[in-house]
Amino acid sequence: MRATLIYGAGDVRVEHVPDPKLLEPTDAVVRVLRSCICGSDLWPYGSKPAADHGARIGHEFLGVVEDVGSEVSGLKSGDVVVAPFVWADNTCDFCAEGLQTSCRHGGQWGASDVDGGQGEAVRVPQAQGTLVKLPVGEDSALLPSLLTLSDVFSTGHHCAVTAGVGPRTTVTVIGDGAVGLSAVLAAKRLGAERIVLMGRHAARTDLGREFGATDVIAERGEEGVEKLRELTGGDGTHTVLECVGLKPALETAFGVVRDGGVVSRVGAPQYAEVPMDFGVFMRNVTLTGGVAPARAYIDELLPDILDGKIEPGKVFDRTVGFDEVPDGYRAMADREALKVLIRP
Amino acid sequence: MRATLIYGAGDVRVEHVPDPKLLEPTDAVVRVLRSCICGSDLWPYGSKPAADHGARIGHEFLGVVEDVGSEVSGLKSGDVVVAPFVWADNTCDFCAEGLQTSCRHGGQWGASDVDGGQGEAVRVPQAQGTLVKLPVGEDSALLPSLLTLSDVFSTGHHCAVTAGVGPRTTVTVIGDGAVGLSAVLAAKRLGAERIVLMGRHAARTDLGREFGATDVIAERGEEGVEKLRELTGGDGTHTVLECVGLKPALETAFGVVRDGGVVSRVGAPQYAEVPMDFGVFMRNVTLTGGVAPARAYIDELLPDILDGKIEPGKVFDRTVGFDEVPDGYRAMADREALKVLIRP
Repeated sequence: MRATLIYGAGDVRVEHVPDPKLLEPTDAVVRVLRSCICGSDLWPYGSKPAADHGARIGHEFLGVVEDVGSEVSGLKSGDVVVAPFVWADNTCDFCAEGLQTSCRHGGQWGASDVDGGQGEAVRVPQAQGTLVKLPVGEDSALLPSLLTLSDVFSTGHHCAVTAGVGPRTTVTVIGDGAVGLSAVLAAKRLGAERIVLMGRHAARTDLGREFGATDVIAERGEEGVEKLRELTGGDGTHTVLECVGLKPALETAFGVVRDGGVVSRVGAPQYAEVPMDFGVFMRNVTLTGGVAPARAYIDELLPDILDGKIEPGKVFDRTVGFDEVPDGYRAMADREALKVLIRP
Repeated sequence: MRATLIYGAGDVRVEHVPDPKLLEPTDAVVRVLRSCICGSDLWPYGSKPAADHGARIGHEFLGVVEDVGSEVSGLKSGDVVVAPFVWADNTCDFCAEGLQTSCRHGGQWGASDVDGGQGEAVRVPQAQGTLVKLPVGEDSALLPSLLTLSDVFSTGHHCAVTAGVGPRTTVTVIGDGAVGLSAVLAAKRLGAERIVLMGRHAARTDLGREFGATDVIAERGEEGVEKLRELTGGDGTHTVLECVGLKPALETAFGVVRDGGVVSRVGAPQYAEVPMDFGVFMRNVTLTGGVAPARAYIDELLPDILDGKIEPGKVFDRTVGFDEVPDGYRAMADREALKVLIRP
């Protein structure tokens, strides 16, 4: 089959690799219907040292079950399924607490002998715990939105949930990438009435408004903080959803959060230390969030997509075939595309 | 009257200052029955640059109302009262949320024209919102425990509450100072069954065991983290109460917290940045806590002290009169005394 490999910064290739097959009785093999490129894929795309051997990449996919191991129940060939961006047994104590990202028997796509998501097929470890059946056909128009359950929309939702967003909380979302826009949609879905989106790419913030943002602030840094404070009578917002992963975004987050408020971060941190000094301490500000246990949220979010209440798949503004995957990376890195859908 | 002033590192003096009197109709004047020295007073005692003029110090006191302004109701001369370690109107939106430390009309003891707590009397701004009546006499044996409501026990409680301590959570307390021991007592009171105290002063950790610690770890740094992990099957504890305020303590906290867990900090931060890197992000660890809104907790904690269910005043292991206040500072700084009670 064909799959995407990354050889180093700026060097993504689609190559022939061995077809996946069952290795463990808990495995399944899934033929991929849709995959996509994640903002977090752009970190290695921007900085990975060049290597002779490519590494499999991609961690968001949905597809059709082709084969299941003897210990997998509840799944059969032909089922349409979505995979969260980490695999997990969904039965250990961490999974039971909704923290499948810390599963005692789980792991990441593309690591060691596990396939990446950006390929024609994937061997899925712990298939019964990992995969979620979707009541749609292979040609459903909902596939792009359903694919966002794998990562980007679940991640926005995790950010909003851990921040404690609800009808009574004001919200700032930092970042107009696909995760930031998903966080806006998630905050709106959770009942927030005031959602300020900080971002400066008009096409993206326009989608943010469509998703529920009530205000947009294009300014950054100190200027952006001042603007947000002006909008909120000087106080800042109860919750801040940090969807970038860079230190300046986090500094802005602490600048715009209200005393007693919560900053939640879901942007993969490109920093080692967080500026939570004496001043932040005196204001009782909490920092929460982390990598999103998408599996924990799919059952709750799925019905709203099936019912057409939300359409998180709107974050995809470009669709590519396998030959164009390298150009899809380039387009996202150049901010030409917001998020790229891959259709094998 | 006499009051304590700090002139610089190691230089605390008791001097005559003007008697307090009502300045605003919302003021009261309180004659101090008991005050004490706080671990946080030791930071300026350790490092404050020398100055020609002393600054008033002390922020924990209980006493007897001597005079009240025309707009103060519910308080009268002769009432025994305790003051939280910041004053607040207790009516603004932040106060209503239980965040009196961010009160829109509040402030700190010892700042500008406000008296410090380590004196014979104090003018109390926003007296009606700030002071809490105590149903005891001036000579009650409960005064030391009641005084801890002002700061140290309320701070330990804040740490435990914001961390989410309850019957189902395991707890690590970092620091065997008065705040750490108070956090142990608070965690026990909230139902925690497993409380590991990290500290290495046997007299203090013995009191920690009396307060409810089930295990004591004397090791520090990496060694301490390993020991804690051993005790908890490798996982760490759900909650970590960081009661020191130094960066190594915070590093230990992130080392011993379980995935998905919460670190709460109440030690006044002597650092500007927090080590919450990619690894902490992948484990979904939250950092919360901050300066404790003691006023928010007094109504809840008071009955347990009056009933004798808890005796947080045991953290006081030395009592001094005014002449001995400078020696009290020295004794606490030298770790000769755990916490020093001042009896004018």
